Amino acid sequence: MTYRAPVAEMAFTLRHVAGLDRAIAEGLHGDLSDDLVDTILDEAGRFANDVVAPLNRVGDRHGTPLKDGVVTMPPGYRDAYRAWTEGGWNALPGPVEYGGQGLPVLLNAACIEMWNSAAMAFGLGPLLTAGGVEALSRHGSEDLRSRYLEKLVSGEWTATMNLTEPQAGSDLSVMRTRAEPTGDGRYRISGEKIYITWGEHDLTDNIIHLVLARLPDAPAGTRGISLFLVPKVLPDGTRNALTCAGIEHKLGIHGSPTCTMVYDGATGWLVGEPNRGLACMFTMMNNARLGVGLQGVAIAERAYQQALLYARDRRQGRASTATDGGASPIIAHPDVQRMLLTMKALTAASRGICYLTAEAIDRAHRAPDEAARQAAQARASLLTPVAKAFSTDIGIEVASLGIQVHGGMGFVEETGAAQHLRDARIAAIYEGTNGIQAIDLVTRKLPLENGAVVRGQIGALRLVAERVLKEGGPAFGDTAPRLRETIEALDRATSYLLKTLGSNRPDEALAGATPYLRLFGLAQGGACLAQAALAANAAAKAGDGDPAHPARIALARFFAENLATAARGLEETVTAGGGFLQDGVLALAG
Amino acid sequence: MTYRAPVAEMAFTLRHVAGLDRAIAEGLHGDLSDDLVDTILDEAGRFANDVVAPLNRVGDRHGTPLKDGVVTMPPGYRDAYRAWTEGGWNALPGPVEYGGQGLPVLLNAACIEMWNSAAMAFGLGPLLTAGGVEALSRHGSEDLRSRYLEKLVSGEWTATMNLTEPQAGSDLSVMRTRAEPTGDGRYRISGEKIYITWGEHDLTDNIIHLVLARLPDAPAGTRGISLFLVPKVLPDGTRNALTCAGIEHKLGIHGSPTCTMVYDGATGWLVGEPNRGLACMFTMMNNARLGVGLQGVAIAERAYQQALLYARDRRQGRASTATDGGASPIIAHPDVQRMLLTMKALTAASRGICYLTAEAIDRAHRAPDEAARQAAQARASLLTPVAKAFSTDIGIEVASLGIQVHGGMGFVEETGAAQHLRDARIAAIYEGTNGIQAIDLVTRKLPLENGAVVRGQIGALRLVAERVLKEGGPAFGDTAPRLRETIEALDRATSYLLKTLGSNRPDEALAGATPYLRLFGLAQGGACLAQAALAANAAAKAGDGDPAHPARIALARFFAENLATAARGLEETVTAGGGFLQDGVLALAG
Repeated sequence: MTYRAPVAEMAFTLRHVAGLDRAIAEGLHGDLSDDLVDTILDEAGRFANDVVAPLNRVGDRHGTPLKDGVVTMPPGYRDAYRAWTEGGWNALPGPVEYGGQGLPVLLNAACIEMWNSAAMAFGLGPLLTAGGVEALSRHGSEDLRSRYLEKLVSGEWTATMNLTEPQAGSDLSVMRTRAEPTGDGRYRISGEKIYITWGEHDLTDNIIHLVLARLPDAPAGTRGISLFLVPKVLPDGTRNALTCAGIEHKLGIHGSPTCTMVYDGATGWLVGEPNRGLACMFTMMNNARLGVGLQGVAIAERAYQQALLYARDRRQGRASTATDGGASPIIAHPDVQRMLLTMKALTAASRGICYLTAEAIDRAHRAPDEAARQAAQARASLLTPVAKAFSTDIGIEVASLGIQVHGGMGFVEETGAAQHLRDARIAAIYEGTNGIQAIDLVTRKLPLENGAVVRGQIGALRLVAERVLKEGGPAFGDTAPRLRETIEALDRATSYLLKTLGSNRPDEALAGATPYLRLFGLAQGGACLAQAALAANAAAKAGDGDPAHPARIALARFFAENLATAARGLEETVTAGGGFLQDGVLALAG
Repeated sequence: MTYRAPVAEMAFTLRHVAGLDRAIAEGLHGDLSDDLVDTILDEAGRFANDVVAPLNRVGDRHGTPLKDGVVTMPPGYRDAYRAWTEGGWNALPGPVEYGGQGLPVLLNAACIEMWNSAAMAFGLGPLLTAGGVEALSRHGSEDLRSRYLEKLVSGEWTATMNLTEPQAGSDLSVMRTRAEPTGDGRYRISGEKIYITWGEHDLTDNIIHLVLARLPDAPAGTRGISLFLVPKVLPDGTRNALTCAGIEHKLGIHGSPTCTMVYDGATGWLVGEPNRGLACMFTMMNNARLGVGLQGVAIAERAYQQALLYARDRRQGRASTATDGGASPIIAHPDVQRMLLTMKALTAASRGICYLTAEAIDRAHRAPDEAARQAAQARASLLTPVAKAFSTDIGIEVASLGIQVHGGMGFVEETGAAQHLRDARIAAIYEGTNGIQAIDLVTRKLPLENGAVVRGQIGALRLVAERVLKEGGPAFGDTAPRLRETIEALDRATSYLLKTLGSNRPDEALAGATPYLRLFGLAQGGACLAQAALAANAAAKAGDGDPAHPARIALARFFAENLATAARGLEETVTAGGGFLQDGVLALAG
């Protein structure tokens, strides 16, 4: 099954949901024009469709065998990666002073979605490289920047992130990898890191590892962790003392090697201040979280496309609306329609949330005045855990529905629907599990500016619901009241959590974190779809006969009437959260 | 990771939720005693733990290679299967006149759960054989019964169900396999069948295929389908003209061969009346549906056990309740507790629903008076699609949560958590997809006796909620009001659907079928947990200090306060169902 990048839908979302038009009009993106945006999207779409998408099955079947420390990537990956970097796609958002094109994070978000729809295992590597560019740009010394940035920006070399150790997953305070200064500004790094994505491969001549380790006499806990740059090949051309000691046999993303890396006195350079490595790594991770959220959108989109094609083609049973005597395509059956609409609506909603987050990141860097930059930064911080966790949760749900639409054929690997579920499953785990995202949202993001940031966002959602009430015609059905109910449920749950966080029972807030994040996603996602529908409505009224416009209105309505309806129940669950804290362990013990 | 059959919990559910005690007291099960029930459960548990559970990973890794028409089952399967049949486990529910033990379907339901928790790929084959016994007992001629039943009841031979053809999945009306009478009471069967579970294997000397086919000049559509018995080995010891032409490469249940069977003029015998094959097959499928529901429960239980062990063992971060300085086991974190409680509560709720369905099936066969038998049959008919679809949906959800609890290790196949998700995924598809179950529930089961059957069931649920209100103490929290709200939401959604079915827009009822089934499962499942909690409460008050009793109360409360809260939203979705029928295809077209 071939993937077709939904370029028109992406462009519409960029402009009318995430506000790219406004940002361009405000001059935030220099001389970037509408035409250039369309050209870039079209070309990226063609590349994703024609070059990357065919790698998806190949990568799943071949995997990435390891032999004597050498990882062989699946057939076709090397040529495709070279063509991809030569096409300038890795450099798209990179800093201009190191050869990047300096284009908006928002525009790149659409491209990231395309690469990951086409082949998530392929798209994953460059996400890590982008994180490396970010960390090095912000925290690297002049020397390190001039030595490594250009080749990472172009993608000639790739980067990795080395956090996890066998005894330390999400909890980095118990990290053991050591870094001994050699006295000449370098360090000897020793330790074992696991789950290192693209830790070893044969696509590039060098791999730049960013490794968390402890200096001698570093304070215990997370305040004693430093970040080091440890290249596979040293500047003098010799191999560094590091090896890939194993690769994981995983449920999915078989085309992406997940390596155990052993550093055996490997030469490294400090990045940023000593003992401040975690701050550097968080820079890297925050952007990566949006990237992983986009992977959720990407898999959902691909699973939806495949299910839609199948449902139009496969004939089974006779629908009540059938006009001829034969079997109907299964898309004519209401229950199949519900599945497909759920897939499409969740995909579009999470796309809106991710693009909106990307726009906030751009604005945080590019807005002309400091206050606007800070406000945008706060919004990006608030939305990032929602973008990551909601999108990757729905990525799994949509991929699972895609299997269901296929019936028995969905369970057969040759069909390809099952791979989407296997691939999607990791995105809810890596870059901070979705539980950790929910805790981040509740404990760090809600209290930002004493709750003013989240209140501001809820206020923005209310404005959308009011516009639907005023401007929406009969085609909007109950979109306005349902959306308003969802937003009010979010508002009440937010008040409850802010109050509880400030009380002497903050664990009750933690207990409600996951349903709260879902509720946030439904309100924000519903508002994104409603905004698209309003823009579509205006365009249609102005005479634009594009059939995508009524489709957008129908999709916003479906989401509000059929999916956002979960909001009240989620609110009740959030506020009941504390109920199980006393007796929950009791229930599990019984 | 080893599986431990939760024998005490099963026994409690059999007695206090499904009503085995009452049935025994009423004399429905002859001289079956409480002691014998306990002995059987204990022995089944030991066999499942010690003999079957070790096959689970082996089956997943080895699969069932096909070479020259011969399927080799995974190492250990043959010995385990022989020991299992020799232990009398296949014969447990079988008819006494053919060597069966004639024990209740309800008791066997607990055993089926154990075999499938231990190794779903292993447990699946005997479910098919049981269906074959059922079909043959009811519809087979004296000759066929005497020739085949004893060996199928004992499990010396296995049976298969042959419905699907490449062009006909759920829609059997377009079936092409032909049966030509030979004039001596036999038929020549020719055609190709796909997705035939255990269609070929090396565990037994013979395999009895039950095959749907068309007689010459049979009416078109489903009224022209007949059922045939087609043995792999003919009574004279020669091989029949049938072969396994391929096996599927599947997402999960790798230890269960899914075969393409080619019948090339194979000799067969008619089962039941000509052109009435579908009715015979439905006999077989109805029981199989409960069996598949139990597979959902089974996988959920195993995934829960594995996640619980991991969460107690794995230390990450420091919980606010920690008393020492080190990292806490992750079970101490509220968000992990929520995941584990969700897993346990959904598993226990679906177990209650499945066991209750099994009890209704027993009563439909064994109640002394006809009216009671008919009432029980109606209840079994109503509950079967809920047991099948709700349990298999939650099987997938719980297995996915199990991966999430494991973090990165959950994505690594060696851990074993991922296999549960891969295995669980099929149960929502086979034996009629869950969408078809929902449509069956709404269009065939709700209208039974003009709605009196479903009203009666809702009445029974209300009684449970009222008892909780009266008898439940503070430990029950908001169990009573939340449960009542869930039941009232079910009642209103039921009224809406019954009205809509009788109107000129029945498609609107079909559109709401899936969320309605979920709502039904939440109300029924919540009532099952509440009933267990009431029994536990009474036992604790009577001085029984078993820690499982407060755990049952806490679990019922968790379900009511945290999961059943979805009910109102589901009701709104059911009643909004029609909203997308006009513009749904529009939305998908855009």
